[in-house]
Amino acid sequence: MSLLVTGSIGIDTVETPFGKRQDVIGGSAIYFAYAASFFAPVRLVGAVGDDCPKALLNVFENRPVNTAGLEIRKGSKTFRWHGSYLKDMNEAVTVEVDLNVLAERAPKIPAEFLDSRYVFLANTHPALQQETLGHLKSVKLVVADTMNLWIQTERQELEKLLSKIHGLVLNDGEARLLTGQKNLILAARETLKMGPKFVVIKKGEHGCLLVSERDTFVLPAFPTEKVVDPTGAGDSFAGGMMGYLATQGNLTSATLKRALAFGTVVASFTISDFSLAGLTAATRDQIDDRWEKFKSTMSF
Amino acid sequence: MSLLVTGSIGIDTVETPFGKRQDVIGGSAIYFAYAASFFAPVRLVGAVGDDCPKALLNVFENRPVNTAGLEIRKGSKTFRWHGSYLKDMNEAVTVEVDLNVLAERAPKIPAEFLDSRYVFLANTHPALQQETLGHLKSVKLVVADTMNLWIQTERQELEKLLSKIHGLVLNDGEARLLTGQKNLILAARETLKMGPKFVVIKKGEHGCLLVSERDTFVLPAFPTEKVVDPTGAGDSFAGGMMGYLATQGNLTSATLKRALAFGTVVASFTISDFSLAGLTAATRDQIDDRWEKFKSTMSF
Repeated sequence: MSLLVTGSIGIDTVETPFGKRQDVIGGSAIYFAYAASFFAPVRLVGAVGDDCPKALLNVFENRPVNTAGLEIRKGSKTFRWHGSYLKDMNEAVTVEVDLNVLAERAPKIPAEFLDSRYVFLANTHPALQQETLGHLKSVKLVVADTMNLWIQTERQELEKLLSKIHGLVLNDGEARLLTGQKNLILAARETLKMGPKFVVIKKGEHGCLLVSERDTFVLPAFPTEKVVDPTGAGDSFAGGMMGYLATQGNLTSATLKRALAFGTVVASFTISDFSLAGLTAATRDQIDDRWEKFKSTMSF
Repeated sequence: MSLLVTGSIGIDTVETPFGKRQDVIGGSAIYFAYAASFFAPVRLVGAVGDDCPKALLNVFENRPVNTAGLEIRKGSKTFRWHGSYLKDMNEAVTVEVDLNVLAERAPKIPAEFLDSRYVFLANTHPALQQETLGHLKSVKLVVADTMNLWIQTERQELEKLLSKIHGLVLNDGEARLLTGQKNLILAARETLKMGPKFVVIKKGEHGCLLVSERDTFVLPAFPTEKVVDPTGAGDSFAGGMMGYLATQGNLTSATLKRALAFGTVVASFTISDFSLAGLTAATRDQIDDRWEKFKSTMSF
């Protein structure tokens, strides 16, 4: 089924204990789209400036990612992020960030994308997330991400957004900030009261938690000693999860669990190398193999 | 099969966001013994001073815990610990600690305990742990716990201990300190090189990790919103794990996994109330029910 993602596309510089990569492709929509494309065709909506090297945008060649919604905006500059994991592999320190094109108007959604059924609103201003959503008339499942900045400065818009979506994906610190609850299950329950049918809390190396009225489901991260660059892990997780959900057409407990496990496994490929290299080196067969292994180690 | 534990028995004062309890029973051997006694008979070895109120030591009435190794030492004072979780429910801040009897000679192991097959050496000076172990001539499975203090100040004795035991249980910070490895799987692998056949890393609210030459197994904590007092969670985990192992007589992957899951579930009862109240209110049926629920939410 049709899966649309809108979010950031950026040029990243990343430092980890394993080295430094300059001017590599990044951004939430990029990681999400690549991860989801292992499962379902993806429609990408996002904007870059005319300074963005074409080579960076070729990552979706031979992938089922429709880039008709990729706007190369004349006279604008591409979003840039410079992050460091030298202190803590579980949390990036932002060395520098230039919003550039992300601070301008939202990218236009192509007419051919307006019938999208599955939608992922990657982290951006909640008013823009609502605006995007307002154009889509056939949605079946809308999941959004958010961040500390909007929780602190755009609470009202964020609450409006929460009343319009089915699922919210956020990290543990954000969930605590949003609700004032330290216990993550209580934080998730509080969040449900704001509108979403389910909440997924990402805990980085500690895995994830899904809470709905019906389910409470926890998963550890896929155990791996190869953590080279955690950038994009959360968006890859969301991509794997939504990509799988888009192929299922239901939200039963079993489907949600399997989707979380696929998200977990896809993220484990992302963090195994810098930028998109972990994902571009992966195949669907490898993902399925690792998923089966994960499933078997989780059963006792 | 015979399961012996030696460790601390203390009088605790604990503060959490849910209140304060003064002069309640605590100590690693107490939590371990109570938790393990849901599965197998337990032999308790430990010392208190003659200041210890008898009522505190009555917790094992009607439990299959043999307290012949409980020494009430004349003229000595009981170990006391005052801890606070007001800042962080995942890590106690020690407000005050008086080692008292724990700083004296080790308690004597009764002759009737010397044939113990399963042994848990709860956290204490690694030289004392070795001394205790030296008396036991029929051991089949020896698991030890340790702490930062010994890793930093008694490295040599600790390494000697590690060469003599089958399993080591420690928390994430301790594993990183012991090995200098941030990644916990690598930290566990490094630890294996020091002697143990398996290493269990406890991550508090984030669950646990077992690594052996053959297995890498991760489990989240049992998802619960009722966390009142985390004191004793790690020792209860070890008690549930060892209690179950003592009933099995093998260390297959499947047995180890199930043992970790029992440890996880038993710890979830411990943290649901102050001191031992969470455990004393639990029944084996409730533990089995929660274990089945955990097993089913973990399968996908």
